[in-house]
Amino acid sequence: MVAACRKVHPNDRVPVWFMRQAGRSLPEYRASREGIGMLESCMRPELVAEITMQPVRRYGVDAAILYSDIMLPLKAAGVELEIVSGRGPLIARPVRTDADLEQLRPLDPERLWYVTEAVGLITSQLGALPLIGFAGGPFTLASYLVEGGPSRDYAATKALMLSEPSLWHAMCTYLADLSAVFLRAQVAAGAAVVQLFDSWAGSLSAEDYRRYAQPYSARVLRALADTGVPRIHFGVGTSELLQLMGAAGAEVIGVDWRLPLAEASRRVGHRYALQGNLDPALLSTPWTVLSERVREVISSGAVAPGHIFNLGHGVPPDADPPVLGAIVDLVHTEGAQLRRAAREELAGASTAGGR
Amino acid sequence: MVAACRKVHPNDRVPVWFMRQAGRSLPEYRASREGIGMLESCMRPELVAEITMQPVRRYGVDAAILYSDIMLPLKAAGVELEIVSGRGPLIARPVRTDADLEQLRPLDPERLWYVTEAVGLITSQLGALPLIGFAGGPFTLASYLVEGGPSRDYAATKALMLSEPSLWHAMCTYLADLSAVFLRAQVAAGAAVVQLFDSWAGSLSAEDYRRYAQPYSARVLRALADTGVPRIHFGVGTSELLQLMGAAGAEVIGVDWRLPLAEASRRVGHRYALQGNLDPALLSTPWTVLSERVREVISSGAVAPGHIFNLGHGVPPDADPPVLGAIVDLVHTEGAQLRRAAREELAGASTAGGR
Repeated sequence: MVAACRKVHPNDRVPVWFMRQAGRSLPEYRASREGIGMLESCMRPELVAEITMQPVRRYGVDAAILYSDIMLPLKAAGVELEIVSGRGPLIARPVRTDADLEQLRPLDPERLWYVTEAVGLITSQLGALPLIGFAGGPFTLASYLVEGGPSRDYAATKALMLSEPSLWHAMCTYLADLSAVFLRAQVAAGAAVVQLFDSWAGSLSAEDYRRYAQPYSARVLRALADTGVPRIHFGVGTSELLQLMGAAGAEVIGVDWRLPLAEASRRVGHRYALQGNLDPALLSTPWTVLSERVREVISSGAVAPGHIFNLGHGVPPDADPPVLGAIVDLVHTEGAQLRRAAREELAGASTAGGR
Repeated sequence: MVAACRKVHPNDRVPVWFMRQAGRSLPEYRASREGIGMLESCMRPELVAEITMQPVRRYGVDAAILYSDIMLPLKAAGVELEIVSGRGPLIARPVRTDADLEQLRPLDPERLWYVTEAVGLITSQLGALPLIGFAGGPFTLASYLVEGGPSRDYAATKALMLSEPSLWHAMCTYLADLSAVFLRAQVAAGAAVVQLFDSWAGSLSAEDYRRYAQPYSARVLRALADTGVPRIHFGVGTSELLQLMGAAGAEVIGVDWRLPLAEASRRVGHRYALQGNLDPALLSTPWTVLSERVREVISSGAVAPGHIFNLGHGVPPDADPPVLGAIVDLVHTEGAQLRRAAREELAGASTAGGR
């Protein structure tokens, strides 16, 4: 996994994990969480470790991802919020003015003691497998903070972004530093890779992304540079933004299902490892169809100098765990061979083209 | 408007209308609809004419669009469905098997008498202004039919599409013919332009769109070819699909806000008129910001051989009508000049480049 992130892709394996592999879709998760609120569950180290390990035990994936939430650092900084099952984060008092923003306190890393403790418990169980730490991209966090919850069009967020650039700048700088503290705490405790989820950045045009979102994502990623851990940068519907997301300072670009990985790699000049990108909506198709799609993703991803197999977005709540298990097995048994064959074909084609 | 669709763009005007200009955001609409269900309101010709004319009277837009719904032809064909305010269409019995599909009857155009009557009433009031007729794209209609209502990921739709290609083919052929009957009825009664809304096609990769959606949209558009009316083809999040949407047989491609019109035009080889593409989420920004964005859209759209100003998606329910009115005025007072200036600059640049 780490080698693939660093573009020294191993010959014997295509690494695989799933966004949201820990959580909603697993019966053992639902049992562990029973009667415990979402954010509360993220603050109990033993429970976090157990939930983080569940998909590793079940699927044999090549990485664990910390069970947590992108809103957790806001909660830790004193913002009144809850995460409502089936709806998402709800903020008691949306942040829309300078006065609102002044209420927000910087995050003392000490307040993330439960994250540090959980990461320690997890890495002691993981052995050689890497733990992925994660945080939210400033645009995505700002969208929840400004809208007060999930949104379809981010109208209040975009209005603030365009009409009050200095407030926007202050808010996103604050959020970038918050995510950086969250990520550094995870890395200090043992996370070997980090992923920045800027899930809703794809609602912006490339020009607005470049002006109003990328600088703050870059600020987060830059704050991790001295740790040396590979940085994955992911969003949904970002086919126009891939180059900018890479330039923000990531080693790996996460791609959703809309763009074949080969085309994504071409657009970014084959300079990044890619992660993705099976359409999660296909998990309920028959195995003959689904397995062919898995193979296509691997062959397409072979164009990139490194490929980490994943879905193009998170595991849906109603996903059937044995299907995810079968995908892991397929990627492990056929992945290396499919990747090798695709790369040999590419090399052949480029030689032929050179004649 | 019609000239711009035909790429003989008038020199004195950039035409403008808004998707969903008739409806939810207008107080006079809410008054007219009081106590009347959505689909029922589409079946009362006088009411349809009144609602269709409301934004024309209020804004002075360059086209009316029939007040109706993409689900109406399914209702007319006997499918049990309702449209629930704030949620969308709900289908009593989702269609997922050959047996379900066999229950669906072809649509006798006679059953659309209220549409014919409404279009007659409207065109008699419109004078020289064109009426836009519309219908849903087969993929989008299929998504409602299969899911039973709105969906976030179209999982059941995609599963059916990939795993039962012959059922999918039969369903989309049925839906294409239904939309064609609906559009032909509107054109026969006097609609001067048609728009095919394949709103959710952007959830597909280009390859899946080409295989499973484009052929059926092409079937609808082809069924209109002999009428000679310009055909607009629109979807959301379709920056990867624009070429395929044009090739399906449209004169005009509708573009959402994510891609600048100049870039969209470049991707389709400057061979289509374009419609769009102000981000509707920006309607609540201050006028100094918003008006600059309106001007940018016009200048960017000048690259295309024809440009119809519009939003990049429908008018949001909470839009402030005076803001839409101010946009129409701005497009009418400055549009022609901005377009001319942008085209002269382009011509200059291409001459300079030729030296």
